[in-house]
Amino acid sequence: MKTVTVGGNLKLACVMVGLPARGKTFIAQKVSRYLRWLGINIKIFNVGTYRRRDWGASQPHSFFDPNNEEGKKQREQSAWEALEDMFQWFDEGSGEVALYDATNSTSERRQFILEHCNKKDVQVMFIESICDNEKLILQNIMAVKTSSPDYSSVEEKQTAVQDFRNRIEHYAKAYETITDNELTYIKLINVGSKYIVNKIRGYLESRVVYYLMNLHIIPRNIFISRHGESVYNTQGKIGGDSELSPQGQLYAEALPKLISTHLKTQKLRVWTSTLRRTIATGAKLPYPKLQWKSLDELDAGVCDGLTYEEIAERFPEDYANRDNDKFNYRYRGGESYHDLVLRLEPVIMELERQEDIVIIGHQAILRCIYAYFMDLPQDRLPYINIPLHTLIRLTPMPYGTTEERFFAEINAVDTFRPKPPQTHPSPPTNQ
Amino acid sequence: MKTVTVGGNLKLACVMVGLPARGKTFIAQKVSRYLRWLGINIKIFNVGTYRRRDWGASQPHSFFDPNNEEGKKQREQSAWEALEDMFQWFDEGSGEVALYDATNSTSERRQFILEHCNKKDVQVMFIESICDNEKLILQNIMAVKTSSPDYSSVEEKQTAVQDFRNRIEHYAKAYETITDNELTYIKLINVGSKYIVNKIRGYLESRVVYYLMNLHIIPRNIFISRHGESVYNTQGKIGGDSELSPQGQLYAEALPKLISTHLKTQKLRVWTSTLRRTIATGAKLPYPKLQWKSLDELDAGVCDGLTYEEIAERFPEDYANRDNDKFNYRYRGGESYHDLVLRLEPVIMELERQEDIVIIGHQAILRCIYAYFMDLPQDRLPYINIPLHTLIRLTPMPYGTTEERFFAEINAVDTFRPKPPQTHPSPPTNQ
Repeated sequence: MKTVTVGGNLKLACVMVGLPARGKTFIAQKVSRYLRWLGINIKIFNVGTYRRRDWGASQPHSFFDPNNEEGKKQREQSAWEALEDMFQWFDEGSGEVALYDATNSTSERRQFILEHCNKKDVQVMFIESICDNEKLILQNIMAVKTSSPDYSSVEEKQTAVQDFRNRIEHYAKAYETITDNELTYIKLINVGSKYIVNKIRGYLESRVVYYLMNLHIIPRNIFISRHGESVYNTQGKIGGDSELSPQGQLYAEALPKLISTHLKTQKLRVWTSTLRRTIATGAKLPYPKLQWKSLDELDAGVCDGLTYEEIAERFPEDYANRDNDKFNYRYRGGESYHDLVLRLEPVIMELERQEDIVIIGHQAILRCIYAYFMDLPQDRLPYINIPLHTLIRLTPMPYGTTEERFFAEINAVDTFRPKPPQTHPSPPTNQ
Repeated sequence: MKTVTVGGNLKLACVMVGLPARGKTFIAQKVSRYLRWLGINIKIFNVGTYRRRDWGASQPHSFFDPNNEEGKKQREQSAWEALEDMFQWFDEGSGEVALYDATNSTSERRQFILEHCNKKDVQVMFIESICDNEKLILQNIMAVKTSSPDYSSVEEKQTAVQDFRNRIEHYAKAYETITDNELTYIKLINVGSKYIVNKIRGYLESRVVYYLMNLHIIPRNIFISRHGESVYNTQGKIGGDSELSPQGQLYAEALPKLISTHLKTQKLRVWTSTLRRTIATGAKLPYPKLQWKSLDELDAGVCDGLTYEEIAERFPEDYANRDNDKFNYRYRGGESYHDLVLRLEPVIMELERQEDIVIIGHQAILRCIYAYFMDLPQDRLPYINIPLHTLIRLTPMPYGTTEERFFAEINAVDTFRPKPPQTHPSPPTNQ
């Protein structure tokens, strides 16, 4: 299916701008994950990685002193190598969006990047992160200390922090914020407090801007759970709008306790689909509830209400084809996983804006949402195992998401079937 | 159906800020139309309307001189009356978003509004339009001259323009742009060139900001047409994915000429749904094409592929109920018009960003899109007449949209049935 996501032969470089400890890498990784989930071919080019490879990971702050001619030359070489790799990646053909992650803290440096991108017909959007809130900066410094490969060999915490502060000072001396109003840019000021957006034109640029404007960094959990076992589940049928089975009803009764045990705050919102089995599963939860049509299960079209055996009998070709490219396979008169991702995009956007949430959903829907948070590729997405009667707690962290699974100890049918080893003829696989 | 559109008992005042001829009323009307289409209860309070009612329409520019004590007092009285009416409208209960349209050009005035809104538990978002591009300002002044009720009695064009320029000068003397970073605001600078967004938090605020960032004022046309007559149309069946009838095929062949005759530019994009009848209808058009799953026809669920007679026979209660509230009626296992509006929201957003477009769509889909442009209420939306084999040209103007209809002179079945005079029992009506 064609979508408006990509307009022709677009090549876009998102160029990060900002002092160290301003969340540039965090932002680059979030944007990358979001666009990859939407099906965009995206790659991050992190200059720090090149610098560490070329000159070693444990350079002292003096390496970053603008008056250190040797250090400056070496850093510029790494920056250039990353840029060259980026252009090569675009030239190879299918690259759509590159994220060029470095400080890029002077007008001269940005002009240099812009000119080279223009020559290569690559559009440029600058993403500048500015922060003058000391508390936020310190938080970031501490996080960098514990996660940056630059300091993995430094044992004394205070030594690392001081060295990093000195490094920031070197950059701060030469730092110039973006003032050229001919450039396409977004400035993020103090993490979500203020944004300045200049000369944004394309669809993708506009999506990235809107996404960035919805991010926050407040710690929170996203709980996901499938509905309790349904009557259709026990009959091996897909789709429909059936009630819970007796076992499913037990899960609905156990869910409030299961959630409250693993909930860190008391402010929770519950999202369900508009189908009976998710509404009934969430019915006992003592939190505000919202029904989203967009969370309804994948529409199986003409196969709705059938068992896999019946599908194999009535639509043998469709059935055989599905495992060849399950992500893009669209049921006759229904939807594909690809369709679901596009349908769920506004849900993801709203999820980013929310704090603690529990989503009572369906197998295919939760696979898409899980894949977004865990950054899983489209070919693996339709085979993610999301069992019945299991609460999954997702915790967004600075550089990824952690997960824990809590089984309710109430038996249910197993609706999961792994990807078959050979795809034709194919054994049964679940939606 | 509950949606995330409204979060509890939200009351939001969008307060316009800007000199005369900066497009404030245009922006207020666009935002109002968009939110109303999404189902938000919204109302514009235009202080100019109160001023004209209270003190007459033909006040000379000296009335607006900040040194004219009497004029100032009178203007402030009108501003206060509009504000009081706004609060009364909120107090009446169901009001969600008010647009308070005036210059509000000093910090003092904005502080005054903010304090009164705080007392009434009304959230405030300021929308400031700034323009220092002389060409744009002049365009706006000329448009105001031809459309403003303030100058309807002035015959000499040059006189009106000069008086209006003097009025702007009076405001400019006292004008203060928003600098208070505690306020929630968006500044629009030179119509889409730059945006500054501060302390935006809520879902609705975020939607309004994103919408404003997608608007442009380049003149253009939106063409809408249903697919050519389909085999199902001739059989009286709804839904499905049938091919064109022979008459429908004739329409597909006639469409390129019909469009090119009424197209003012040569840069056109074609959007179709993913269903055969729209793709076949657009097949001969020599422009770039895009298929949108979101443009697929309303899903009639269990009624898909049936005739209205069959629906009446198999689901007599559903059938009888549909005309009681056609906008919210959801087919079993399918969709309602309300669902469609939510599904089409990203399409509308992208439409605002595009220039010349032709949409080859379906009856229910085009009703929703047409209602957006023509600002029609939800209860009338499902009864809009969008006949087969007719090209509709929509032209967005500063204060609304004009339409022209071009019939292709190729006969087709009539699928339109008006709202029945009594709703129970109800005669046949089309989806």
